[in-house]
Amino acid sequence: MRPNERALNQPRPIKITRHYTKHAEGSVLVEFGDTKVICTATVEETVPRFLKGQNKGWVTAEYGMLPRSTHSRMQRESAKGKQSGRTMEIQRLIARSLRAVVDLTVLGERSITLDCDVIQADGGTRTAAITGSCVALIDAVNELIKNGTLLKNPIKGLVAAVSVGIVNGESVCDLEYVEDSSAETDMNVVMTDDGRMVEVQGTAEGEPFSHEELLQLLDLAKQGCEQIFQAQRNALAQ
Amino acid sequence: MRPNERALNQPRPIKITRHYTKHAEGSVLVEFGDTKVICTATVEETVPRFLKGQNKGWVTAEYGMLPRSTHSRMQRESAKGKQSGRTMEIQRLIARSLRAVVDLTVLGERSITLDCDVIQADGGTRTAAITGSCVALIDAVNELIKNGTLLKNPIKGLVAAVSVGIVNGESVCDLEYVEDSSAETDMNVVMTDDGRMVEVQGTAEGEPFSHEELLQLLDLAKQGCEQIFQAQRNALAQ
Amino acid sequence: MRPNERALNQPRPIKITRHYTKHAEGSVLVEFGDTKVICTATVEETVPRFLKGQNKGWVTAEYGMLPRSTHSRMQRESAKGKQSGRTMEIQRLIARSLRAVVDLTVLGERSITLDCDVIQADGGTRTAAITGSCVALIDAVNELIKNGTLLKNPIKGLVAAVSVGIVNGESVCDLEYVEDSSAETDMNVVMTDDGRMVEVQGTAEGEPFSHEELLQLLDLAKQGCEQIFQAQRNALAQ
Amino acid sequence: MRPNERALNQPRPIKITRHYTKHAEGSVLVEFGDTKVICTATVEETVPRFLKGQNKGWVTAEYGMLPRSTHSRMQRESAKGKQSGRTMEIQRLIARSLRAVVDLTVLGERSITLDCDVIQADGGTRTAAITGSCVALIDAVNELIKNGTLLKNPIKGLVAAVSVGIVNGESVCDLEYVEDSSAETDMNVVMTDDGRMVEVQGTAEGEPFSHEELLQLLDLAKQGCEQIFQAQRNALAQ
Amino acid sequence: MRPNERALNQPRPIKITRHYTKHAEGSVLVEFGDTKVICTATVEETVPRFLKGQNKGWVTAEYGMLPRSTHSRMQRESAKGKQSGRTMEIQRLIARSLRAVVDLTVLGERSITLDCDVIQADGGTRTAAITGSCVALIDAVNELIKNGTLLKNPIKGLVAAVSVGIVNGESVCDLEYVEDSSAETDMNVVMTDDGRMVEVQGTAEGEPFSHEELLQLLDLAKQGCEQIFQAQRNALAQ
Amino acid sequence: MRPNERALNQPRPIKITRHYTKHAEGSVLVEFGDTKVICTATVEETVPRFLKGQNKGWVTAEYGMLPRSTHSRMQRESAKGKQSGRTMEIQRLIARSLRAVVDLTVLGERSITLDCDVIQADGGTRTAAITGSCVALIDAVNELIKNGTLLKNPIKGLVAAVSVGIVNGESVCDLEYVEDSSAETDMNVVMTDDGRMVEVQGTAEGEPFSHEELLQLLDLAKQGCEQIFQAQRNALAQ
Repeated sequence: MRPNERALNQPRPIKITRHYTKHAEGSVLVEFGDTKVICTATVEETVPRFLKGQNKGWVTAEYGMLPRSTHSRMQRESAKGKQSGRTMEIQRLIARSLRAVVDLTVLGERSITLDCDVIQADGGTRTAAITGSCVALIDAVNELIKNGTLLKNPIKGLVAAVSVGIVNGESVCDLEYVEDSSAETDMNVVMTDDGRMVEVQGTAEGEPFSHEELLQLLDLAKQGCEQIFQAQRNALAQ
Repeated sequence: MRPNERALNQPRPIKITRHYTKHAEGSVLVEFGDTKVICTATVEETVPRFLKGQNKGWVTAEYGMLPRSTHSRMQRESAKGKQSGRTMEIQRLIARSLRAVVDLTVLGERSITLDCDVIQADGGTRTAAITGSCVALIDAVNELIKNGTLLKNPIKGLVAAVSVGIVNGESVCDLEYVEDSSAETDMNVVMTDDGRMVEVQGTAEGEPFSHEELLQLLDLAKQGCEQIFQAQRNALAQ
Repeated sequence: MRPNERALNQPRPIKITRHYTKHAEGSVLVEFGDTKVICTATVEETVPRFLKGQNKGWVTAEYGMLPRSTHSRMQRESAKGKQSGRTMEIQRLIARSLRAVVDLTVLGERSITLDCDVIQADGGTRTAAITGSCVALIDAVNELIKNGTLLKNPIKGLVAAVSVGIVNGESVCDLEYVEDSSAETDMNVVMTDDGRMVEVQGTAEGEPFSHEELLQLLDLAKQGCEQIFQAQRNALAQ
Repeated sequence: MRPNERALNQPRPIKITRHYTKHAEGSVLVEFGDTKVICTATVEETVPRFLKGQNKGWVTAEYGMLPRSTHSRMQRESAKGKQSGRTMEIQRLIARSLRAVVDLTVLGERSITLDCDVIQADGGTRTAAITGSCVALIDAVNELIKNGTLLKNPIKGLVAAVSVGIVNGESVCDLEYVEDSSAETDMNVVMTDDGRMVEVQGTAEGEPFSHEELLQLLDLAKQGCEQIFQAQRNALAQ
Repeated sequence: MRPNERALNQPRPIKITRHYTKHAEGSVLVEFGDTKVICTATVEETVPRFLKGQNKGWVTAEYGMLPRSTHSRMQRESAKGKQSGRTMEIQRLIARSLRAVVDLTVLGERSITLDCDVIQADGGTRTAAITGSCVALIDAVNELIKNGTLLKNPIKGLVAAVSVGIVNGESVCDLEYVEDSSAETDMNVVMTDDGRMVEVQGTAEGEPFSHEELLQLLDLAKQGCEQIFQAQRNALAQ
Repeated sequence: MRPNERALNQPRPIKITRHYTKHAEGSVLVEFGDTKVICTATVEETVPRFLKGQNKGWVTAEYGMLPRSTHSRMQRESAKGKQSGRTMEIQRLIARSLRAVVDLTVLGERSITLDCDVIQADGGTRTAAITGSCVALIDAVNELIKNGTLLKNPIKGLVAAVSVGIVNGESVCDLEYVEDSSAETDMNVVMTDDGRMVEVQGTAEGEPFSHEELLQLLDLAKQGCEQIFQAQRNALAQ
């Protein structure tokens, strides 16, 4: 049995709270069960040097975990003086995922930075971060439209992510920490709401996985993302 | 008039939420008006090298701000590769303040780390952090007593902090951001609940301040801290 | 037409030169067309702290590019003072891939470090690095067996990797730089020689990719890896 | 009895040597007993980015200790690769203290940097540094007036600092190292020569301090600063 | 007897392979016996800030060793986060040596960077690097002449380097690792092909050396450089 | 004519003040004309890891410049977060030079660290640092002998250093800044008082130098060092 008697294809309860903090153009608290991430979107009227003068915008992301968001305390990355490889990998993934749903030419020469800060971790922090950031990004863009800065909407659709994996020989959707730490295979899938994929990252932690297992996991991911898109739509409708 | 029609000696509404996140031994969300700080207390069965073998414990603190906790986005300190002077100053202040109410010999050869992470800033983040950390620390220590690790309580009393300052020629208590940014003098006072002081840090931002002004500010700080001790007691009583 | 008139499913010529430098326990120059990577395996009779006393070994990897291995010169990472996110991502991938074919318990309390240094880059450096490292690792392990340090072979099979992608709407195998830089989707697949997968990392650079496209790419990757395994076997047979 | 039979309210002999090194616009060796600090003032015709175009100048400070200025050797901060929290705290304090006596608008769009390097430490290095820097700053400004760069004097008065504290239950002025290391309360007071305060930083090292104790310490600080102002005036008169 | 039965004044076999990698403007593999260094020359149409607007060019160098170019693995400098003192010393030496044969005014406002990466070390890596870099530099400059960027040749001659030393009381030329590690005196000499010297760096590892010993070493260095110049000329003639 | 009407072979006035600061086991202010360096020797009862258990001691050195020891202010290395290549080169040179006159076996398993801090620079800071460090080292060792820690003297002789160079076609001894900055060739020579050499580092800044010029410079260095040894002997005799 899965923890909390979840079905194999059932994601944890998804909760998306908009306008969570007051300064950011978009600010969302996203919860995948006990995993809680604050996602803020900051708009700046500037682009990185490599894009200057190209009439295109940029979307980037940064990721961090509060030191005691985890079971045992992790060292603070600012005190260590550098970000870990895992942090860099995740923030690059978040940024690529969001750029998949933004028409950067329509955005114009400005940047949107998504800051994803994990305040409580229980597995799936990167998929929660992508899911919440999408809503924060849309809030920030809508603000630009409302105040007349943007005349056209650069958002091409929703993007969401879920982890799937093989745990004790069973394929399951949206792994929480106790599942994640004993998974044989772990896969993160990022999808757009037209059913296509932006990222697929599957890793065999123990035994390699077969083609059939991969297909099963992709199917579970599709089912999970559909529920997550619905949670995003509900939040945006409020 | 002060923002929100506050009286000169009136702190903002203080809210202390215990057990805010689930992993830490103590976890508090403290709010001084719109300033919101997560304070967690982590117990580790080890002490820094300079204390090894002395049968004494240690209490330390780290402080950080989410990049978009502020009006405009600040660069993430882990990405910059170092903590600012301001961050170091504040975390040293928090740690000293809390050590003032802990009998380190009774604590025994173990450490408690307070992580103070600002999720929304509106002035007074360091005083909120000290105030919230005190409650998180007490929760962590009570846990050690409850599970039999500690036989005696090392906590000697409550510690709380408030900022006071001179704004437009008037002495006021618990400055919020708009006041803080135009204050002529800014002072942080850390007190114990027996009315004595642990830290006094007064800074003239513009004109130097006189002995009389200093006395006025100390008086306001004392009044403010009394209300904050009451908020701590209420939270701990729940 | 592809550059060099390659068929869509045809990898570049693979060349594996063993014993390339003289000090390392395993040392391989691997070439995927014009991409050239030196892979060395270093055996050390120690394990990282988190594995001490567990009677298990460790396999890790580091990756670097000579500053002028690329079209325009890149800044030297040692001069910049830190490794980029891309570097960290790649070296973590290489290490995970190799651990998939090593029984760490049989290896015993020792470490093998794979250093992968790109001396000329033309796309696919990480897949070449995994492929060459596998051979260097086997040479190092065989040395341990030959000198009596290991009584049993910890190597469970071969591991190889290839990139596949969608370029101008066509799915192709083993992208070189000009293809890679214009690919719509880019995927790295790491396989073991029993046909199973260790890592799948697919990224939509432009449009998201469909389930059918993913299946096509996986099929091309399988074909490519088969040829690469053959090149590894040939090299090891010499 | 205090070391060297000093009275409770008596600072150590203060010695200020101007023109100590030859390159700087202002260069002072300041001695508070055995504490010796070289303070140099450097004028640069530029301001930090955040002040550009505002017709205002800037005064900043840096602080360092020679590795063997102390009883046992400290690690060199340039070798460690970062400045400690204590160093940053002190250099921020020195800079704020000096800005209190400079009219930055009169200074015009230029910067003055005070470098305070401790060559021998015996307690009170930060208060000596503030005191010596004030004289170095005035020398540098007088140079600007003499060569016609400045038509009006931006200096508003003298600034000096002294430490006071409670040692063995007695309030004393200008603590030397043996006193400082056993003080129950330690306070640094920065004053202008009109008797007002720029900074008050009091810290309870052991027991918290009472309002009455604070008043006593402030009184001692005032007496001490008066003698230090006299030493500054004597030095400037030569 | 010396290893490989070399005569006291005989350098190891020198091999210079031009056009070793394909992207750089100049690319050389230089071998002094088992010491192998890749030297690439990169031309950039910019100069460091301190030379801007002076109608002069710049030649600089960077040096690195692959982690397992040596007998036991060295930590990767990019992972450590800084270059060692030895690395900095060597790359400054290489750059100064090459600037000795370039007329920077004729080069014009552009930079040439020599990257010297040791892939196998057996003593004398810095002298090999200088020798190989000279050829890579000439190839890069000839390219600039050929494509019309330069109308006049800024190269004033050849520069080469050799190590000499006292080993077991005997003066020898071009020390390999086993000699180098037991040398009493070690000296690197950089010469131009008109017989003059650019750098002489002699170090007593054990006993100080006498004036007569110094003269002997200089004589051996002269003989060695003559053979190395011949190897450079042969390579350039191909 | 040379500045201050010095003869070509005449070093600047050398002044060595012992017991300059009070905490260090050896503490010297050395002056070569206007170049002033504080050299302290610190004894620690420990050796670096690579020497543990070998019954041998170690001598090391660190070098720094106060930011305004120079004509224009240099950035503080602790603020930049790293030591420059020049700094590392110099401190390695100082340490090697001093080890040449210490019998490390007689010193026993302890370390002596020489800290050389330039308070005023006017050319020749590294040669002054070596010269002054030798005296500080001897003072520290004599202290160890006096207090019975050492039964035998590990000091084998004096070591001193001087710069020589070719300025406007003339060979001169002990260059000051205005000479140094226009020298065609610059050479630092470190000698022991038996007339032998520990280090010779000659660099052509402009034209390469001939064998004859090298011999002239060595002769000048020998003459200069003799006077410096005399200054060391005089200081030690006081």
